[in-house]
Amino acid sequence: MKIIVIGGTGTIGKAVVKELAQRHEVIVAGYKDGDINVNIADKKSIEAMYKSMSNIDAVIATTGTVHFGKLAEMKEDDYYLGLKSKLMGQINLILLGLPYINDAGSFTLTSGILNHDPIILGSSAAMVNGAIDGFVKSAALEMPRNIRINSISPTVITESMDIYAPYFRGFVSISSAQAALAYSKSVEGAQTGQIYKVGYL
Amino acid sequence: MKIIVIGGTGTIGKAVVKELAQRHEVIVAGYKDGDINVNIADKKSIEAMYKSMSNIDAVIATTGTVHFGKLAEMKEDDYYLGLKSKLMGQINLILLGLPYINDAGSFTLTSGILNHDPIILGSSAAMVNGAIDGFVKSAALEMPRNIRINSISPTVITESMDIYAPYFRGFVSISSAQAALAYSKSVEGAQTGQIYKVGYL
Repeated sequence: MKIIVIGGTGTIGKAVVKELAQRHEVIVAGYKDGDINVNIADKKSIEAMYKSMSNIDAVIATTGTVHFGKLAEMKEDDYYLGLKSKLMGQINLILLGLPYINDAGSFTLTSGILNHDPIILGSSAAMVNGAIDGFVKSAALEMPRNIRINSISPTVITESMDIYAPYFRGFVSISSAQAALAYSKSVEGAQTGQIYKVGYL
Repeated sequence: MKIIVIGGTGTIGKAVVKELAQRHEVIVAGYKDGDINVNIADKKSIEAMYKSMSNIDAVIATTGTVHFGKLAEMKEDDYYLGLKSKLMGQINLILLGLPYINDAGSFTLTSGILNHDPIILGSSAAMVNGAIDGFVKSAALEMPRNIRINSISPTVITESMDIYAPYFRGFVSISSAQAALAYSKSVEGAQTGQIYKVGYL
């Protein structure tokens, strides 16, 4: 398969690339690094990325930003950061990518645990994760040409715990390599409309 | 209690008003009708509504729009309609309403069944409902002054089936009066961070 991993230079993305490159042709898309550059908050950048490629079997997104902050200090724009980046950035990868992906291809998005197991400062992440999971479950009903769509909802990643541990006390982290297996299942398996909850207690 | 029902002129809202007015002072806010007018897509309109009131114990939102359409025809702006109206409209009722609501007051938002039980044309509704439910679960951790927050996720409403039945084949509808009981539980009960799934099979 020919697989593009958008955010393939990040913590989870690198592990996904490592896992899948053993068996497939993997193209790494990053904001600054990687085989190809893309800014998922910019539709023209997404279009340009797809136009430069052909014969894509799978699109994986492991990217997107949200603002973490105290609820009492969150402004509307703080929520829109996540809605525009992690949510609509990933959705636009699908809307704009559909004409370019092969029959029976797949899209795999990344949400996260915080809408199920919330933490202080995480209301925007919870909002965006819930939106992604809801979209995926519904969009799977309407994907054309046997194209599949799933989301991966990982708990906190071990390699990120040096920064995130104070916010995720008591959470059991998983390695990025463990998380990467869920992306493998989504791409190399046959299921659609799934939210793969990885490392949930 | 003094309760404001935003969208209190709509199908669910009218039933909520009827249920709660038996025991409480209820103010009906509507886009055009009601005791007071508000446009939840306009922050200034929300601010003006709150400034005109005092001593609010509960804010209920039963309003907000999403675009229903075929996934293959959905554009980014079609998703933003729901994100701006049903999602951020309701969220802004909280962000802007917090200074005005009494200690131990409550916010009750409306999501819906479609992120759990999806239908064709419903990918935007599923996205928005998931976002609301995720936000509510997380925001409950950080609400100040013992203020509570819940969302009501009803199945399709019987009174709307003359229009919606073709899209909800096989769904068991519930009356707006049944749905209204969940709003009563949210406002008159003590729970917080709950997604009340009403009429799910």
